[in-house]
Amino acid sequence: MTQSRTTATFAPPVMEARRWLEGVEFPDDRPLINVSQAAPVDPPPLALREAIASFAVTEESAHLYGPVLGNPALRCELARQIGSHYDAPVSSDQVAITSGCNQAFAAAVTAITDQDDEVIVPTPWYFNHKMWLDMAGVRTVDLPTDDALLPDPDAARALITDKTRAIVLVTPNNPGGVEYPAPLVRAFFDLAQEVGIRLIVDETYRDFDSRSGPPHDLFAQPDWDQTLIHLYSFSKAYRLTGHRVGAIATGTDLLSEIEKFLDTVAICPSQIGQHAALWGMQNLSQWLAGERDEILDRRAAIAELLPSLTDKGWRLLGLGAYFAYFEHPFDIPSDELAQRLVPEAGILLLPGTMFMPENDAAGKRQVRIAFANLDRAGLGQLFERLAALSF
Amino acid sequence: MTQSRTTATFAPPVMEARRWLEGVEFPDDRPLINVSQAAPVDPPPLALREAIASFAVTEESAHLYGPVLGNPALRCELARQIGSHYDAPVSSDQVAITSGCNQAFAAAVTAITDQDDEVIVPTPWYFNHKMWLDMAGVRTVDLPTDDALLPDPDAARALITDKTRAIVLVTPNNPGGVEYPAPLVRAFFDLAQEVGIRLIVDETYRDFDSRSGPPHDLFAQPDWDQTLIHLYSFSKAYRLTGHRVGAIATGTDLLSEIEKFLDTVAICPSQIGQHAALWGMQNLSQWLAGERDEILDRRAAIAELLPSLTDKGWRLLGLGAYFAYFEHPFDIPSDELAQRLVPEAGILLLPGTMFMPENDAAGKRQVRIAFANLDRAGLGQLFERLAALSF
Repeated sequence: MTQSRTTATFAPPVMEARRWLEGVEFPDDRPLINVSQAAPVDPPPLALREAIASFAVTEESAHLYGPVLGNPALRCELARQIGSHYDAPVSSDQVAITSGCNQAFAAAVTAITDQDDEVIVPTPWYFNHKMWLDMAGVRTVDLPTDDALLPDPDAARALITDKTRAIVLVTPNNPGGVEYPAPLVRAFFDLAQEVGIRLIVDETYRDFDSRSGPPHDLFAQPDWDQTLIHLYSFSKAYRLTGHRVGAIATGTDLLSEIEKFLDTVAICPSQIGQHAALWGMQNLSQWLAGERDEILDRRAAIAELLPSLTDKGWRLLGLGAYFAYFEHPFDIPSDELAQRLVPEAGILLLPGTMFMPENDAAGKRQVRIAFANLDRAGLGQLFERLAALSF
Repeated sequence: MTQSRTTATFAPPVMEARRWLEGVEFPDDRPLINVSQAAPVDPPPLALREAIASFAVTEESAHLYGPVLGNPALRCELARQIGSHYDAPVSSDQVAITSGCNQAFAAAVTAITDQDDEVIVPTPWYFNHKMWLDMAGVRTVDLPTDDALLPDPDAARALITDKTRAIVLVTPNNPGGVEYPAPLVRAFFDLAQEVGIRLIVDETYRDFDSRSGPPHDLFAQPDWDQTLIHLYSFSKAYRLTGHRVGAIATGTDLLSEIEKFLDTVAICPSQIGQHAALWGMQNLSQWLAGERDEILDRRAAIAELLPSLTDKGWRLLGLGAYFAYFEHPFDIPSDELAQRLVPEAGILLLPGTMFMPENDAAGKRQVRIAFANLDRAGLGQLFERLAALSF
């Protein structure tokens, strides 16, 4: 294989982790606990599935190309709901629909960077962000976070060069779970605006934030759309992972650039996915509130179960959204630990090495648990198995 | 806007052409004839729509993530049908599913090229190919075609440098319509294999080829998968443009590289789209044969209508698949002509300038007519309006 954009990056971590399962059998009395992927395992509510079915049969447009930047009705409703969620007006032409939030990130980066540019990313990062930056020929400048997994704007400022095009934040964070305080997000926005770079804020897990009210005030800032690139996903809120629907909110001039990328790698988002997202936004707000309550209850359950692990030397670094992020107590690297946990404990989780620069010492002590799919009983079993480990 | 990957290329032609329609009113007795986009305007057959509806309600997997390279059942069926169509065995692990054929091209190019590499592309090209090469930092090396829109392997050989990574063919051709003779496709394959580069063959319009039997013998060559990257689309055959389902066939080692790109820009293809494609392949072969007959009849109608235009100085350069590609007789550039045709003739077509390097003289004399959506009556009206033009 000659050198190419893809050889510049690593293999998809979730697919790699799936391969660890090959050939391993799990006894009936101790089935696999899969906390590797941040995805709902249940389908959307029946009413939404029926809405999709009806749309597929009766609406011809369900099967035809649509506008590259998404359907006007969905852009309009999302703009309205962003305005309501963040308590600041956003117009529909500041919003575009993408085929998932990963694509939104790829499109945004492609529209603002060129070969050998730099983007600042707090560590641990979300691996698909790192993969796209690698493939785009952009240098990822790591910004280590503190003990609470929070990045420091002053540390970021020190990393800015004339090649820097953006800073990337994920809040609530993947993999760390931590919800960034509004003033911290604002400080990053102010920094980006001051030096004339973009602030990309991936809010895929927005709907499961434990706080009430707007999680930050960026949409209320003058000229927000010249600095902020907000990313969103419909996958988690409405359980639409298999439909691939995400979104971007930013300035219309930048969306015209982003349109080139989306036209070329997607042409348009799935029509059925867009319809499902719109139906969900219009009809499932009560249901979604219940989903959030359930996730927050599972998070509370983890807090209750925590002493069983801290007693064994585990340390919780972050907890929120779909994730608990831990420092493990063992003298083996997390990538080796994660692979051994499959046959030895019936657990599939992702090691910190997948979220960190190669050979980073901290990553070797960390693991991510995507807990959203485990109820209280499942969490109890998970913690029991983890507490019983010895290496 | 600072220099970026997207600023290195042009705006999406189809969206630009749509904007020409803004503010133009079309009288009831002379409605718009839209021959700009190569897409079915009718939805898939009711049975397929009902299969989608049933799948959405009853199958939980319809809404969940699937494997990055596509669902095993679809990969398997496509491999079987490629084997049958080209009379050569292809295995399911040599096939991957993508979110549309544009994405297949982007993924393939990203997996085989790096910054400043070169790819040879016959002109007129398909604009989304050119756009992705621009955005990927790859230099497009134009290969002019002859009077029948066919590229010459010897001319291609003369363009190969140590930076060349691939040659791209589209057959049946977009925008030219021409079906490349099997020996010509084979000569390009032999050239690519000899010099150790890839041959990308986009066969989106394969199902509407007028010839019977395998359109080429590349899949039967030893080690075909180390040289050939075959691209396919389910959009045209089963009218699934709004679902975004395409495919790649090549070597498994290259598919592992392609998997990185697909994971990062898509995660997985739409589950419903994949189900629809599989259902179509399993149940609609008779229906598809009828679709092909209809397209071939429309093509025959164009051949019959042709004298009304050649009498006025038009010249047909290529005819096939969804397209008629013409040289127009007017002393105005095709991009200006195309815009004037909207209000003055009620016709939306794409100018040759959209398929050619900037300021190319030939492109200014050419237009593409995507005729697949016009029945014989519609084609009659189109030719009547074109024959009546004077500038």
